[in-house]
Amino acid sequence: MRMVDLILKKRNGQALSKDEIEFMINNYVIGEIPDYQMSAFTMAVCFNGMDNNEVSYLTHAMAFSGDTVDLSAIRGVKVDKHSSGGVGDKTSLIVLPLVASIGVPVAKMSGRGLGHTGGTLDKLEAINGFKIELSNDDFINNVNEIGIALVGQTSNLVPADKKLYGLRDATGTVESIPLIASSIMSKKIASGADAIVLDVKVGAGAFMKNINDARELAEIMVSIGNNLNRKTVAILSNMNEPLGYEVGNANEIKEVVDVLKGKGEAKLTELCLELASNMAVLGGKYTNKAEAHQELNESISTGKALEKFKEFVLAQGGNVDFINDYKLLPQAKEHISITSENDGYISSINAEEIGIAAMLLGAGRKVKTDNIDYAVGITICKKTGEQVKKGDVIAIIHSNGQHTDSIAKTKAAFEIQTSMPTVDPIIYDVIQ
Amino acid sequence: MRMVDLILKKRNGQALSKDEIEFMINNYVIGEIPDYQMSAFTMAVCFNGMDNNEVSYLTHAMAFSGDTVDLSAIRGVKVDKHSSGGVGDKTSLIVLPLVASIGVPVAKMSGRGLGHTGGTLDKLEAINGFKIELSNDDFINNVNEIGIALVGQTSNLVPADKKLYGLRDATGTVESIPLIASSIMSKKIASGADAIVLDVKVGAGAFMKNINDARELAEIMVSIGNNLNRKTVAILSNMNEPLGYEVGNANEIKEVVDVLKGKGEAKLTELCLELASNMAVLGGKYTNKAEAHQELNESISTGKALEKFKEFVLAQGGNVDFINDYKLLPQAKEHISITSENDGYISSINAEEIGIAAMLLGAGRKVKTDNIDYAVGITICKKTGEQVKKGDVIAIIHSNGQHTDSIAKTKAAFEIQTSMPTVDPIIYDVIQ
Repeated sequence: MRMVDLILKKRNGQALSKDEIEFMINNYVIGEIPDYQMSAFTMAVCFNGMDNNEVSYLTHAMAFSGDTVDLSAIRGVKVDKHSSGGVGDKTSLIVLPLVASIGVPVAKMSGRGLGHTGGTLDKLEAINGFKIELSNDDFINNVNEIGIALVGQTSNLVPADKKLYGLRDATGTVESIPLIASSIMSKKIASGADAIVLDVKVGAGAFMKNINDARELAEIMVSIGNNLNRKTVAILSNMNEPLGYEVGNANEIKEVVDVLKGKGEAKLTELCLELASNMAVLGGKYTNKAEAHQELNESISTGKALEKFKEFVLAQGGNVDFINDYKLLPQAKEHISITSENDGYISSINAEEIGIAAMLLGAGRKVKTDNIDYAVGITICKKTGEQVKKGDVIAIIHSNGQHTDSIAKTKAAFEIQTSMPTVDPIIYDVIQ
Repeated sequence: MRMVDLILKKRNGQALSKDEIEFMINNYVIGEIPDYQMSAFTMAVCFNGMDNNEVSYLTHAMAFSGDTVDLSAIRGVKVDKHSSGGVGDKTSLIVLPLVASIGVPVAKMSGRGLGHTGGTLDKLEAINGFKIELSNDDFINNVNEIGIALVGQTSNLVPADKKLYGLRDATGTVESIPLIASSIMSKKIASGADAIVLDVKVGAGAFMKNINDARELAEIMVSIGNNLNRKTVAILSNMNEPLGYEVGNANEIKEVVDVLKGKGEAKLTELCLELASNMAVLGGKYTNKAEAHQELNESISTGKALEKFKEFVLAQGGNVDFINDYKLLPQAKEHISITSENDGYISSINAEEIGIAAMLLGAGRKVKTDNIDYAVGITICKKTGEQVKKGDVIAIIHSNGQHTDSIAKTKAAFEIQTSMPTVDPIIYDVIQ
């Protein structure tokens, strides 16, 4: 088998077989197939795509290209959750303790990365004492004892994806739905998931800017999951405006607790309940999503969910006093109010602009080596559809330094109109 | 400027500017742009093409990526000739002395390469004593004194094309009309041509299998020539059956002499006269192609053309006795006749199959290090459209060893039908 023939096959619009895809990935990982052949192949995929079988073969070959996580010592169906990334996306930190509180085991490994704000791991580190490193035994024990553990990824998972992603980034082939789908799904499968709930975000603040692309990505990932015997559900959710009120790290932790206390912003809560219900059903706890939804709601109203969050933080060394006193979370030195310049209604809040404004404050990483300032961020005080009067505070910038650009960007992100706007739902569709 | 942005621009179907293309080629040659970015770019070109301006910029950047040949010491307009390659294509060896015989200076550099038979240089080396290496002074002097010299390419011409061609070969991006066009034209321009006549071959034995692709290639090359101030004409010629009667090296030299003696196969002679007439007009010797054609015909009938060929061979150290005694050329040990199995008409002779049969005998190179056996080859005794009876000799295999596969391939290349076939012309079109 020769790589050049596989490139030509893809260039000519033909589908590759399982053997051909395994040959390609296995030899690429060990360096037998050079980058220059792989980049020609990925560019051909950008134009000619891959069918559902090919994407499944690719996902499988990548998932098993390095170490894999063995979760068999954990009782129950291990359901993983993935978000395609957005601005103010703290859903994992709400959903995971929430489902753990009704008995769905949560054994999650996260990576760090670049973004407008820190990832889930970074946000947790805003909590005094919280440790994202556990021994393998502690990890398994915590899940079996309290139902939840969340750690940093240490082992050599999916080296094929690491290598391929770096290459795609340098060769203009990041934007390819089959390549994105296999990258995401291979990591979930290598992490030991039995079932997967995907939050595929659409809109200004998401990687997928339009619903058709997002739907295509979601459908391919669900098909991969089914082909590889991992029950998979994808939720298409709205990422035009930031999710919830808070964008940052410490302030997002505060909002997590608000939602678990039953005092969360309505759409954020709705999305979390939808994600959690699907996880509960895939985890085999309920056959019926409505029933799961009710149980999860009750877990919030009775305080069970918040209790589980506390147990989780304590088990990983975190101080939980902040739950009753948010001032114990890292605090920024300055809080600058942004006010409305007109009377009217908020018609849109560009999530991407808010995300960049937060990153410029220090809440996220431009390059891997950047440090995160947990205290800084942005609070959105008025959301899309809300009425405002001239002078009303629409956002607050939490800053520890330079903030001129962030103020300008935050202001520019808000659009205000005189008539009441139509407001899009938070959940567009559920694909399974 | 970043290469990844240029790749994305091409992926998105936009045209690159002159500066962008120069940045890309110059940095690729010095190794600042890695192969994996260039191969992603060339694959994007395979899908999205390049417009006439882009191809001209690319050709220019490649042509001046290394040394260039200075032919200014040679009087007159230097017209180069290029063939896109076929089976039995000995036209250069006929056309070059022919145009030299009427005063068009011929200063040609050739490369070696892979192919069904040897290239022009290899064929000349079938002549006892012929030297393809001349000092630069001797090269210039020969052209100024006898009007013709033909040497091997020694200097570092068009390194961008060498590097890019190797990459394209390994990454499935050879077949791209703009990349093929710029590769050919950059070499002609770096070799010092003032004007260029292109023989673009179409059919079973050519790189271009259909007339539309060939026409597109021809039109782009003519456009490049015009954009870069080199008058360019392209002839679209038929390469379904082998050109002339002989396929090999020594036997092709014999056929060259036959044509120059006025005893050549009709279509081969017609094509050579068309190529030579265009060269004579571009060389400024005639304003009118018909007039040039008549003068060239006379040069053959009066023996002037053959005399020029003799002068040329002598000037480069060759023994010319073979011109009157073909037995002095390298001779194969065995001559195997292939006979017709039916009565009928030859409806086609697959040039590619004949080419492979010749290569298997040793007439061409599979890999660069292969040695050529000048003596072996195939003589086509009956051409398309000719009537044959069962038992008539239709081809002769000249062999010095293994020939079973060559016999089978040669037999299979001939199609014989009962009714008289329609025969395609040798020249489809002339594009200028």
